[in-house]
Amino acid sequence: MILLIKKIIRSILHSTITSISLFFSLNNIYTFRKYKNIFYSSLLKREFKDVGENFSIEYPFNIIGPLYISIGNNFSSFSGLILEAHEQHLNNHYSPEIKIGDNVSFAYNCHIGCVNKIIIGNNVLFASKVFVTDHFHGEIKKEFLKIPPSLRKVISKGPVMIEDNVWIGEGVAIMPNVKIGRNTIIGTNSVVTKNIPENSVVGGVPAKVIRKLE
Amino acid sequence: MILLIKKIIRSILHSTITSISLFFSLNNIYTFRKYKNIFYSSLLKREFKDVGENFSIEYPFNIIGPLYISIGNNFSSFSGLILEAHEQHLNNHYSPEIKIGDNVSFAYNCHIGCVNKIIIGNNVLFASKVFVTDHFHGEIKKEFLKIPPSLRKVISKGPVMIEDNVWIGEGVAIMPNVKIGRNTIIGTNSVVTKNIPENSVVGGVPAKVIRKLE
Amino acid sequence: MILLIKKIIRSILHSTITSISLFFSLNNIYTFRKYKNIFYSSLLKREFKDVGENFSIEYPFNIIGPLYISIGNNFSSFSGLILEAHEQHLNNHYSPEIKIGDNVSFAYNCHIGCVNKIIIGNNVLFASKVFVTDHFHGEIKKEFLKIPPSLRKVISKGPVMIEDNVWIGEGVAIMPNVKIGRNTIIGTNSVVTKNIPENSVVGGVPAKVIRKLE
Repeated sequence: MILLIKKIIRSILHSTITSISLFFSLNNIYTFRKYKNIFYSSLLKREFKDVGENFSIEYPFNIIGPLYISIGNNFSSFSGLILEAHEQHLNNHYSPEIKIGDNVSFAYNCHIGCVNKIIIGNNVLFASKVFVTDHFHGEIKKEFLKIPPSLRKVISKGPVMIEDNVWIGEGVAIMPNVKIGRNTIIGTNSVVTKNIPENSVVGGVPAKVIRKLE
Repeated sequence: MILLIKKIIRSILHSTITSISLFFSLNNIYTFRKYKNIFYSSLLKREFKDVGENFSIEYPFNIIGPLYISIGNNFSSFSGLILEAHEQHLNNHYSPEIKIGDNVSFAYNCHIGCVNKIIIGNNVLFASKVFVTDHFHGEIKKEFLKIPPSLRKVISKGPVMIEDNVWIGEGVAIMPNVKIGRNTIIGTNSVVTKNIPENSVVGGVPAKVIRKLE
Repeated sequence: MILLIKKIIRSILHSTITSISLFFSLNNIYTFRKYKNIFYSSLLKREFKDVGENFSIEYPFNIIGPLYISIGNNFSSFSGLILEAHEQHLNNHYSPEIKIGDNVSFAYNCHIGCVNKIIIGNNVLFASKVFVTDHFHGEIKKEFLKIPPSLRKVISKGPVMIEDNVWIGEGVAIMPNVKIGRNTIIGTNSVVTKNIPENSVVGGVPAKVIRKLE
């Protein structure tokens, strides 16, 4: 009996919701999202150290340490961006600096983590799920292994520098102390652990130069 | 004094929220989500070129160019699906076509990008974070490198075709101009850059045939 | 005329939203999120088989089969966690067990899928987009290939065991029947298909031991 009533209620709910959906279209959703993004972009713009004209970011995002982040003109990011400039981890203090040039765009779910310095040039295009970091949880040494990873002192082997005109493929990871030369193309899912010369096409885990375009 | 008041307010808020949470369960959340998904699925169904019976998609999603997308029966996707059929990039026009067969399902955060043609057969199973694309930002040639990647003319080397009964692992990327033969299994995090024969198991970056099951 | 009116309305909406945003800051968003997460963490805590002190999880998440999941003290996860303990797939029944030790933390968008047994030790640190599974859709055998992947009987080759003090990098995947020894570091985007001895640094697709720290 109770099961029957539940079934009837569910069926009524189902048809009601389906009927209500008739009054909405994908365009309505997108319009609503657009204004939500205008709200968040406008709010966020005031938080960064510097931000150029034409700043656009989609919700949700997670920005840590915006005062250490400067952004050029025509920045855009789709949803899921995580930008972390950490000034502290455990009892250690850092002076992080994320500097992003003009005309930089991120697709979905990109993640940048910084305790030292990450410089991104002009006209850099990030596909989705790209990860850039300038630090590790501890040095890769025997004496660190006994410490729980989250309690190891976060250290940076060196800054990350991505020069102008670089195109970074989906799922790519760029590790600490790496410089990527201008005009380079980084292939999907590759992990960049060493400097990459300009005008290169790279791929693989770890990434190797596949072609030089010169 | 102000700090003390703040602390008290926070503590009251904390206990209030914890108490309210006692009136809810995971099941309540899931029921609410279920009806939200019914709403969005019902709304979205009317936007595609074609869509079969039993269409189900979880919010959030991002669908671009639904009029260029046709979908068979029993389609399902968990949250985070991005389906892009672009008819325009810069001043260039495209005739994209995404065609999805029957009984196709996507887990979380999959991403399909199309300016040319992407055909997905019947009974194809996508794990999470799969990326399928039929286009690049510019040809991989010297003369394109000086142009900012986002301003390079988007070009398709050829369509992507995924035949029936293919199982695509977590984090896989499938590149332009690739045909994947029926019954094939694509291993986690691999990047498919070339045609794959049927009845194969493939893996790696770039993906290679590991085993033939014949 | 209508276009003009639309343009005016849009412009008014735009300025209104921009003005409203002046009353909010990133801190307000984070405070709101914090209380939302307190609500969901408090609600979720009551659903697991066991859960220790200091449990914290960010919304959104997706937890399936919480009764088969036990969690130690000081658990934390950022948004996007998917924890699946499946007791049924098609007509097959399973007795899944996910056991998580003390001081385990997940960054963003991690995914754990279990039909058999997944044991995670103490002090294990997961970066973002990590995937751990103890099962496949069917055995990798010829006779399974003709069956649609989603209708193949889900089977587990063996449990996954991650020992204490392991640090798992961004985008890593850990496959069924794998034991990862204590103090090990798993490099970004690598796919672990075989047992890993303790005190190792591993990387690649499939993952190989790069260094032993002893």
